[in-house]
Amino acid sequence: MTCPRPQTGQSIVSLSTPLPLIDEDRLQANIARVQSYMDAHNLAFRPHIKTHKIPALARQQIEAGAQGINCQKITEAEVFADAGFDDILITFNILGSEKLDRLEQLNNRISGLKVVADSSVTVTGLANHFHGKKPLTVLVECDTGGGRCGVQTPEEAVTLAQHIESSQGLTFGGLMTYPKAHSESKVEAFFATTQGHLKTLGILCPILSNGGTPSLFSAHLVPSATEHRAGTYIYSDRAMANAGHGTLDDCAMHLLATVVSRPTPDRAILDAGSKALTSDLLGFTDYGHIIDYPEAIITGLSEEHGTVDLSKVTGPRPQIGDKVRIIPNHTCVVSNLFDFITFHRNGVVTRVETVAARGLVW
Amino acid sequence: MTCPRPQTGQSIVSLSTPLPLIDEDRLQANIARVQSYMDAHNLAFRPHIKTHKIPALARQQIEAGAQGINCQKITEAEVFADAGFDDILITFNILGSEKLDRLEQLNNRISGLKVVADSSVTVTGLANHFHGKKPLTVLVECDTGGGRCGVQTPEEAVTLAQHIESSQGLTFGGLMTYPKAHSESKVEAFFATTQGHLKTLGILCPILSNGGTPSLFSAHLVPSATEHRAGTYIYSDRAMANAGHGTLDDCAMHLLATVVSRPTPDRAILDAGSKALTSDLLGFTDYGHIIDYPEAIITGLSEEHGTVDLSKVTGPRPQIGDKVRIIPNHTCVVSNLFDFITFHRNGVVTRVETVAARGLVW
Repeated sequence: MTCPRPQTGQSIVSLSTPLPLIDEDRLQANIARVQSYMDAHNLAFRPHIKTHKIPALARQQIEAGAQGINCQKITEAEVFADAGFDDILITFNILGSEKLDRLEQLNNRISGLKVVADSSVTVTGLANHFHGKKPLTVLVECDTGGGRCGVQTPEEAVTLAQHIESSQGLTFGGLMTYPKAHSESKVEAFFATTQGHLKTLGILCPILSNGGTPSLFSAHLVPSATEHRAGTYIYSDRAMANAGHGTLDDCAMHLLATVVSRPTPDRAILDAGSKALTSDLLGFTDYGHIIDYPEAIITGLSEEHGTVDLSKVTGPRPQIGDKVRIIPNHTCVVSNLFDFITFHRNGVVTRVETVAARGLVW
Repeated sequence: MTCPRPQTGQSIVSLSTPLPLIDEDRLQANIARVQSYMDAHNLAFRPHIKTHKIPALARQQIEAGAQGINCQKITEAEVFADAGFDDILITFNILGSEKLDRLEQLNNRISGLKVVADSSVTVTGLANHFHGKKPLTVLVECDTGGGRCGVQTPEEAVTLAQHIESSQGLTFGGLMTYPKAHSESKVEAFFATTQGHLKTLGILCPILSNGGTPSLFSAHLVPSATEHRAGTYIYSDRAMANAGHGTLDDCAMHLLATVVSRPTPDRAILDAGSKALTSDLLGFTDYGHIIDYPEAIITGLSEEHGTVDLSKVTGPRPQIGDKVRIIPNHTCVVSNLFDFITFHRNGVVTRVETVAARGLVW
């Protein structure tokens, strides 16, 4: 027993909620705008599929001019390899024999698999596993201020590149970073310094991969980078608009929800809670932007209910049964909650896509 | 292509991560402890399946003595009806013709279906749909201070009960509340007052359904209640222990994660991010309790990475490749992210259950 999927041609206002919707025109515009920017700056573009996890959307991104894709998990990469994608970068330190076995199988069936590593432990694990096998391409992950994974200095990056280069089953693929937004000068300094050292040592550094949506349109301020990775831009969300990447009008994902209760004049309850919107705040103090009632505030989420404060709403207030459209704070985690996503153009359903790479554990 | 599921008999330390694990003994103890309490106080117990979404676990709860189950969505109820459950309360205002059609089908195939309503709009929708059909049982949802759905006063509850009672396709089933924790006296006052008014009017009120895990062991302080609903107690979590419901040792769910990076002496990165733990804080400022390193703080989550501050860890620090066990802040939202859950006893896998009722949209 599952939910009936919307049918092509249905009006979105007739659909049962909560339901994530993607506006085809905004989606297409987001893909085109970012690809044009990358083309204009001669940057290879590698969309991160974490945002949509849907092969048909990655195909749209490739058809627009993207060079390959970025995944965060082996199983995501497997789903996309099954769908015909060949140039896949997994930006994760892969450890453990079960994952290494799967990685080897994946490396044997596509030609453009690449992973990252930021420690000699990860590199040694990869080197031991891939010794005597089809070599695996490994990039060094660099922490350029993002504060997550990555070697801390160009010197450490060079040491790890040498470790990769000297390992029989591995090929050094270059450098990768997931930077803090608006820190292009730091990324450039890290990349250029490391590349200089590597050149002196005679080590080729084919890829310098920068990433992130928030300051994506400043990617050209990292001239050393050969490629840029970004995921969220395709749907965009409230946090991206807040960070200055586009506006709320560029957000292709709306969560359609219904007002199911109006217990008091100032309170509305929606059928969208943390199992539809997630609790991601990303700097906000509320849980999404209600397009139809911009003065309304989603003050809290329980699992299947959203609590809305209407006290600031000056015009007519939503009634029980009314549907509202919400721009989520963070789109990538919303699509991860649903087994399918409904697409529309001007309010008419165009297609329903299975979120093929969700729920896969690792 | 999917993740390989763990096999019965495997050691959990050999499993690939991130992976939610349930300790069978703690699970059984949580079921037994709460059921004994309910039995001792002559309260019918109705577990909420939102926490696990797994029919086999609801069967354990029923076998222990629970009377029926509580669902939050029609599709959840359908999954459990398919699995043989007959006494199902859906604690949600159901609106819209597509959902009403599904509700009617469900009402036709099980004998104990019940829903709630908190407005004349919802009741009118139900009444119009069920007129001339097998009657649907409807309880009035009361806001006893929880601040979510529910009529605001006993007088409103009585009016809505009369509306239900006078509707040909509906049967008045009683009262239901999802209260604020530790507000038993408010619940009792609301229930007792409403029941008194109804009695005067000659309206039978068969069920008075109270709910919640945090102050579950005070449920007997609501003598008017005939039943109690609770979900989280079965796995329990960091927020429940913090609220005084059991201790961290009662938490049956641990998320197994691997240290994938140690970029600096004070920083560890786990392969568990918001797509494994969710961003639910529930009053905490960090994202889960690491059992193996209680002084470590999960300061931030990105989608597939957890950032851990080790600066307060006095003993040995975790190394790359080490596995750690995390007690999530909120267990219900974690199981909602995974397609299957792994169970173990003393570290040896006992079974793997599909999370049958997740991803169903509504």
